[in-house]
Amino acid sequence: MHTLILTADDVHRVVRHVGLDAFMDALIERLRTAISGFDGEATVIPVRSGFAYSEPAEGLIEWMPCFRPGDHVVLKVVGYHPSNGRRNGLPTVISTVSAYDATSGHLKALADATLLTALRTGAASAVASDVLVRADARTVGLIGAGAQAVTQLHALTRVRSIERVLYFDSDPAASASFADRVASFASDVSLHAVSADEVVEGSDIVCTATSVGVGEGPVFGDVEPRPWCHFNAVGSDFPGKVEIPLSLLERSLVCPDFRLQAVAEGECQQLDPDSIGPSVTEVVRNAGLYMGAQESLTVFDSTGWALEDDVAMGLLAELAESLGLGMHLPIEAVVGDALNPYDFATAYAQPVEP
Amino acid sequence: MHTLILTADDVHRVVRHVGLDAFMDALIERLRTAISGFDGEATVIPVRSGFAYSEPAEGLIEWMPCFRPGDHVVLKVVGYHPSNGRRNGLPTVISTVSAYDATSGHLKALADATLLTALRTGAASAVASDVLVRADARTVGLIGAGAQAVTQLHALTRVRSIERVLYFDSDPAASASFADRVASFASDVSLHAVSADEVVEGSDIVCTATSVGVGEGPVFGDVEPRPWCHFNAVGSDFPGKVEIPLSLLERSLVCPDFRLQAVAEGECQQLDPDSIGPSVTEVVRNAGLYMGAQESLTVFDSTGWALEDDVAMGLLAELAESLGLGMHLPIEAVVGDALNPYDFATAYAQPVEP
Repeated sequence: MHTLILTADDVHRVVRHVGLDAFMDALIERLRTAISGFDGEATVIPVRSGFAYSEPAEGLIEWMPCFRPGDHVVLKVVGYHPSNGRRNGLPTVISTVSAYDATSGHLKALADATLLTALRTGAASAVASDVLVRADARTVGLIGAGAQAVTQLHALTRVRSIERVLYFDSDPAASASFADRVASFASDVSLHAVSADEVVEGSDIVCTATSVGVGEGPVFGDVEPRPWCHFNAVGSDFPGKVEIPLSLLERSLVCPDFRLQAVAEGECQQLDPDSIGPSVTEVVRNAGLYMGAQESLTVFDSTGWALEDDVAMGLLAELAESLGLGMHLPIEAVVGDALNPYDFATAYAQPVEP
Repeated sequence: MHTLILTADDVHRVVRHVGLDAFMDALIERLRTAISGFDGEATVIPVRSGFAYSEPAEGLIEWMPCFRPGDHVVLKVVGYHPSNGRRNGLPTVISTVSAYDATSGHLKALADATLLTALRTGAASAVASDVLVRADARTVGLIGAGAQAVTQLHALTRVRSIERVLYFDSDPAASASFADRVASFASDVSLHAVSADEVVEGSDIVCTATSVGVGEGPVFGDVEPRPWCHFNAVGSDFPGKVEIPLSLLERSLVCPDFRLQAVAEGECQQLDPDSIGPSVTEVVRNAGLYMGAQESLTVFDSTGWALEDDVAMGLLAELAESLGLGMHLPIEAVVGDALNPYDFATAYAQPVEP
């Protein structure tokens, strides 16, 4: 009874072996299938829960469970610490994901989920955008140009022919390094650092992925976007944390990833229940029906859904096993006698000398 | 940024190095201190949550979080699968525990918690019993003689001079092997297989640690225990699962480990709120006050408290580090640029040949 351990280095090897584009494409396709086929009986996902704190610095550790009855439980634990870069030289989001056998409780696998989280959040925006964004969209706007913005942009380049990016970050360093960070996949895209309002006014798709503080949003003003603009609101994932102005939400079709969670933590916090649009499952399942929305304002309220982690972990584990990557460690006890927790004490006993 | 991995074998090495008795004694002392000093502001413990199912066999996977603000989060994940022995040759309870840095989100350690869970459950009963059980108690009764019964008995022998054990298990195999399983620490204790009712009638302390099904309890009849008998109700940890007859609870001082959880999952399910006694914290903190209860019927409603896991994990990690045991694995990403999830792709890029 071994546990597959996939370190960040293993995850990176998998993605490099497959290729960033191919990995993202596979993730988008699997996520599209999982979202459109989502059935709350066959995949049980409670609203996530966690600990939020303000000392010694603002932070949050939360767990996101996903249960596939008869098969497995995937539990992602994710830390969100906006001052990690400054204080610890670490990413804002650090995460690991575990998979348990839902017939025995055995821990089947543990993997770094820092890259996976960024990738699946990008892939989710791509799935929603692929329905709600015009085919001729060419300009992506990014408010918040940090780690999540990289995968947002990458994922969107896989579903639309992006030629131009308008970006803004309140941190000049993040803004200054952005071009370098997207060079590997966006070398033929023209990049323009502008104000947050200019991002919104000039883009066909806008992704907000900021660390705006509780009560400090929205992250842009009451300006006029293009009439067909689609927003992927990625950073709104905590009570009181919002990125999109209410006035814009009220004029838009707002599609949450996970409605129960979005009303507690997402942009949907700002809306009364009757003003919330269809879930992303409904939209993706009936893509033809919702293509008309490509001509109007739409918002994907992406709070982060454990379904996405389940899909990402499944893809990763499958590829890692086929490549023979990762370590298989005997983490859990497999003593001879399941009824005897002290079996180990006698199992190792030395024979007494005559 | 490494994660300490402690496999079952590492945990066993720690316990063997220290010695079973000394490890149990240390755990009991630390737990006594933690329980009596428990402060819901300094240690935040929500009611646990999880997934329960009946297909392909009865099972439960749940997570138990404990937050020490400014320091760490401990999250134990525990699987409960009563048919594991028969179906998979595995223990009913399989568990791992993780510790996260509550300033950065970093996964500091992951350890097997199968043995730890059994040990800390025993230690908790010892802490409660040490207040509520007469000093001259000599007979322990065990209903359910499986893995948990071993550590229940072991822990009780550390706080009382136990001379005699009455035990019952509905599984003849568990009953038949019991003497062998406790021989390492109870060689001078006389062991008697009797009926469940006889266990209750003849003991000074009774531990119930069964896998009785939902709606199938209690596990013994409406018989008369010794007037000073103390019960450690260990197996009642799920909605509808109870071990103690209501009539007995109503005549007893019932002390839950974690009241909010006990009313949902423990023996306290059967009681109306006014009939529930003081929490174990209250009892241990004011031990002198509650010594009078040694002469009357008492019940420790032990649903399993994440505080116990936090204490056990702390002790284990401390000993493992001092012994240099365990592996330190770089599980999480430490890329050069925290803002660039794709840093790894360029970091490994081969220089182009001229």
